Amino acid sequence: MAQILVLYGIPADPAAFDHHYREKHIPIANKIPGLRSYTINDGPVNALSGTAPYLIATLEFDSMDDVNTALTSPEGQAAAADLPNFASGGATLLIYQTAKV
Amino acid sequence: MAQILVLYGIPADPAAFDHHYREKHIPIANKIPGLRSYTINDGPVNALSGTAPYLIATLEFDSMDDVNTALTSPEGQAAAADLPNFASGGATLLIYQTAKV
Repeated sequence: MAQILVLYGIPADPAAFDHHYREKHIPIANKIPGLRSYTINDGPVNALSGTAPYLIATLEFDSMDDVNTALTSPEGQAAAADLPNFASGGATLLIYQTAKV
Repeated sequence: MAQILVLYGIPADPAAFDHHYREKHIPIANKIPGLRSYTINDGPVNALSGTAPYLIATLEFDSMDDVNTALTSPEGQAAAADLPNFASGGATLLIYQTAKV
């Protein structure tokens, strides 16, 4: 499997972030081709060490090839283009293949 | 479900980190009670924005109660106590409940 992990920083207006994320961004991102699962934190992120992001989204795909196809698809480009509309605290986007250990 | 997400910073000695993580830390962490799955990146983490950590570990549990039980268990304490033995680049530990969207 392979993942896109998105760590959103604390937004200037959390209520506006939440509203946009739920109402606009999730429907856009859910259209990304090859997406196998899409998970976010439900409730606060607690940091035992380091700094907690505001929101963590994990998008799972079958392979890195599928991640790369997703990122260059019109739907993936639409999701990326939506980030400046709500991610006022910045966002770290990480992509990687995964393995169970 | 609920997760412990561990983002390890770039270590001073990646080969030593890799060896300790594979040979010592995975066996210790795999004993944590209630652990449903344990996934790490297989290959490099690529950052499309922000800074890439060296290693990302996702430990999945049924609930936040199970995460809290895991963290206070002798096995969880042993895993935490092992971090200074290899995590020379620091580690961010995040815990949160998850929901599919």
